[in-house]
Amino acid sequence: MVSNGTLKEIGEALFAAKSVILFPHENPDGDALGSCIALCTALREKGIDCWVLIDEPLSDYLAFMDPSGPAGNPCCTVDSECIGDPEICVYIDCCGEDRIPGREEVFRKGTKSICIDHHGTSEATGDLYYIDSEEAATTQIVFQLLKDCGTLWNRKIANAIYTGISTDTGNFQYSNANARTHRIAAELLEIGVDHNDIMVSLYQNVDFRETKLESAALGQVEFFAGGQAAMASVSQKLLQDTGSQMEHAENLINRLRDIKGVEVGIVLKETKTGNVKASFRAKSWANVGNVAKDLGGGGHVKASGCTLHDTDLETAKRLVMKRVEEELSQ
Amino acid sequence: MVSNGTLKEIGEALFAAKSVILFPHENPDGDALGSCIALCTALREKGIDCWVLIDEPLSDYLAFMDPSGPAGNPCCTVDSECIGDPEICVYIDCCGEDRIPGREEVFRKGTKSICIDHHGTSEATGDLYYIDSEEAATTQIVFQLLKDCGTLWNRKIANAIYTGISTDTGNFQYSNANARTHRIAAELLEIGVDHNDIMVSLYQNVDFRETKLESAALGQVEFFAGGQAAMASVSQKLLQDTGSQMEHAENLINRLRDIKGVEVGIVLKETKTGNVKASFRAKSWANVGNVAKDLGGGGHVKASGCTLHDTDLETAKRLVMKRVEEELSQ
Repeated sequence: MVSNGTLKEIGEALFAAKSVILFPHENPDGDALGSCIALCTALREKGIDCWVLIDEPLSDYLAFMDPSGPAGNPCCTVDSECIGDPEICVYIDCCGEDRIPGREEVFRKGTKSICIDHHGTSEATGDLYYIDSEEAATTQIVFQLLKDCGTLWNRKIANAIYTGISTDTGNFQYSNANARTHRIAAELLEIGVDHNDIMVSLYQNVDFRETKLESAALGQVEFFAGGQAAMASVSQKLLQDTGSQMEHAENLINRLRDIKGVEVGIVLKETKTGNVKASFRAKSWANVGNVAKDLGGGGHVKASGCTLHDTDLETAKRLVMKRVEEELSQ
Repeated sequence: MVSNGTLKEIGEALFAAKSVILFPHENPDGDALGSCIALCTALREKGIDCWVLIDEPLSDYLAFMDPSGPAGNPCCTVDSECIGDPEICVYIDCCGEDRIPGREEVFRKGTKSICIDHHGTSEATGDLYYIDSEEAATTQIVFQLLKDCGTLWNRKIANAIYTGISTDTGNFQYSNANARTHRIAAELLEIGVDHNDIMVSLYQNVDFRETKLESAALGQVEFFAGGQAAMASVSQKLLQDTGSQMEHAENLINRLRDIKGVEVGIVLKETKTGNVKASFRAKSWANVGNVAKDLGGGGHVKASGCTLHDTDLETAKRLVMKRVEEELSQ
């Protein structure tokens, strides 16, 4: 744990501000968004001008987290002018300008900067920072911050935090889900989380194109390292053939890791711009954080990724296989 | 809740006995087995001769729950002579002889009978009974019983209960998972559950034949009731074509329910003996317990099943579609 202030001190700084912009990492997941939306909602309740600045509209599967429309009062915006002169800018679920590409200029406008994160790879940044890699999700840190500041809970805040915890722990399946995680979940359920709605939105709302894409990709899985690694590729052609889009390949990596005997699942995605994005998941003991780091990316021990620039699927495959085989032979 | 004694009273009767046979329902799932194994282990620790009488060897995916071998000291047996004159026979996760076909004779040998269950469809049976359909899993009831009796916890007991809770709540995904469920999970994790091992065994240990069978069956899904119902069939021929067995179709029903827009998922399984087994899952509001009941089966509001005797897949399909359409039009 790295910090130069308590959560209460950070919370007090935020609740004393006039305006705050929250910056989740690019392509924000449920935890980054959940943290931002919970904090934004709590700050707005106190009359603070607060926005979550994202780089592009939310992924379909997370859109439920921040409903728009008359009753929605959405937190997220792509408008870099949402607040002219923000008093505080906050990295959420990330630390550092390299995780908020395209939004660095806005971040620098803040009079004060804060970082709240749970990534072990993050380095201390900002006037105040709190990075605790022992926490399963950044939403758990935000939960504690709001509790330490005596925040009045409402359903939107509880839903956002529950969603973040659920997505970052594989709904309590990954080994980061500990007793504390379950106790927070219990408290949130008592506050009144829309449990069934969130579960349906996250896990029971699979676009049938995803089902088709997964079935096709799983039909071409390559096993190596004696069956300990399973690799699937998603080419632009496969997307065309199955009438699907790259976002429909999001869960494929888990299907691979979940195969009996497989320790590392790998998905290679061919981008439209001549790059290959690689994702890695480990089941029990392999460190795919190291694999991704060596290939210019990052992440956690059991979930990581990298982008291989100016390459094609076949070249990327050979490179990735070599590095994963090394990891698995250790 | 239906009971004629407290859990403490039931526990005291069990812990005062010389010999106990525990009877899970046929084709026992993680909750039935988890309840039995936890209780059996705790009773044996007190020197009581206790066995779990099952009708056939455990399914592959649950075998990890009751390891055999020198160090294993397994609880489960198919030997109806395991105890000649059992003092107490206990229905676990079921109530009534119709749920333990082939083992009724042994059950009747018990001097005293007990029923511990969480199925709302169960009727009070036995000298002592405790049926609480508010509990997400029968393992939660066993957890409370052991706690009320001051049982010393060990890892095998904790693992068995955690497994039962996990399997009966879709790993905390279904709406039966409430604050109490999470608080029990937290306590069990603190006792020292082998969390990663259990999760890997239950959810990350998919036989690749299952992956192949699912992909094939999902390629032939029939949607009806305006896309609110998705039905897949598993014929004996499909098993042959994909080199798989019927047990590999276990999770297919969830894949169907999880499709966007689908309220009811249905799987029809052609048995080798001329019957069709139908399984139903509801997502949010439909009552598939009623559907199954009308077709001669039973279960819960959101998860149920029935066996259609002496029929073929096409006839079964028409019958099931008609009844499901009725349910969805209500």
